Amino acid sequence: MSTEQASRGYGEGKEDYLRRLRRIEGQARGLQKMVEDDKYCIDILTQVSAMTSALQSVALGLLNDHLGHCVVEAAKAGGPEADAKVKEAADAIARLVRS
Amino acid sequence: MSTEQASRGYGEGKEDYLRRLRRIEGQARGLQKMVEDDKYCIDILTQVSAMTSALQSVALGLLNDHLGHCVVEAAKAGGPEADAKVKEAADAIARLVRS
Amino acid sequence: MSTEQASRGYGEGKEDYLRRLRRIEGQARGLQKMVEDDKYCIDILTQVSAMTSALQSVALGLLNDHLGHCVVEAAKAGGPEADAKVKEAADAIARLVRS
Amino acid sequence: MSTEQASRGYGEGKEDYLRRLRRIEGQARGLQKMVEDDKYCIDILTQVSAMTSALQSVALGLLNDHLGHCVVEAAKAGGPEADAKVKEAADAIARLVRS
Repeated sequence: MSTEQASRGYGEGKEDYLRRLRRIEGQARGLQKMVEDDKYCIDILTQVSAMTSALQSVALGLLNDHLGHCVVEAAKAGGPEADAKVKEAADAIARLVRS
Repeated sequence: MSTEQASRGYGEGKEDYLRRLRRIEGQARGLQKMVEDDKYCIDILTQVSAMTSALQSVALGLLNDHLGHCVVEAAKAGGPEADAKVKEAADAIARLVRS
Repeated sequence: MSTEQASRGYGEGKEDYLRRLRRIEGQARGLQKMVEDDKYCIDILTQVSAMTSALQSVALGLLNDHLGHCVVEAAKAGGPEADAKVKEAADAIARLVRS
Repeated sequence: MSTEQASRGYGEGKEDYLRRLRRIEGQARGLQKMVEDDKYCIDILTQVSAMTSALQSVALGLLNDHLGHCVVEAAKAGGPEADAKVKEAADAIARLVRS
């Protein structure tokens, strides 16, 4: 693993995230097929909800990894960098909760 | 437009929905690229939030069309079908709010 | 039941909504007590999540009643009023999904 | 300030949180008044959305304080306690995002 990769909280789970994102891409294609085939609105909405949940699950995983690696490392190092990392993570959480 | 298409609330906006879903599919590919390139977790999370908002916006549009066409038609026709359509729509809204 | 009450979709379930809202008010007081007693942040957050779910559940109930009464009535009457009611409901759903 | 208070991340902002929670309690009472007075469903839903946003805002504030104090302290101390705190925070975030 390169130094660069090691510096990312999700490094270890990279393949898993890629697999989940490919599935989400497939869900986006599946939705286009449903619209093209004039499927029933409610069935499309059910798939949109499933895709939103899958995306949220990826986001929560990334956030967990980020807290456990980047934020914890910054906290250990201390100083203004630690505060900045916490603020940055809190802002990302707020965007997630409100999106 | 076929009879089948006409029966879907989103019929008129079909091209617009397909365009938005293709963009969402592109966002899913963009996220895979970010993970492959070891981009910073917070930047990935920002893109996930943007993609979630885009998906929600599609869902709200579909729901609006559904209420304005399928539910209104069923209400005019009356009877148990109207109640069933309202319940079905309410359940879809609940899944959306909770996803 | 007065004419006024009858015109509200939630008329029949009024007592049930009041009971749930009183419980939610109690949850708000419980949260104040937890903060005053310096309870652990995570335990407070768990209670906030429970209270948010209870509120959402009230909102989904009201929305269901609204669709089943006000929107269905307007749809039967037809005309611009029906369109206005659907738009109004869709806007309320959007606020709910995004809040 | 007692040692106990100092150990809570929200210690400094305690008065502010209490003020916001009292306002939220007031919103819950206002909603009961609206239902009692048979106010229009959509107006009630608008108030529910405002109250949900106020609650979420309190939750995000508490989470921010928690990350900046409890989690950062645990990270500095290191060991399994740090991992446990990160997991606990991530679980609280997941409940918040999904509620």
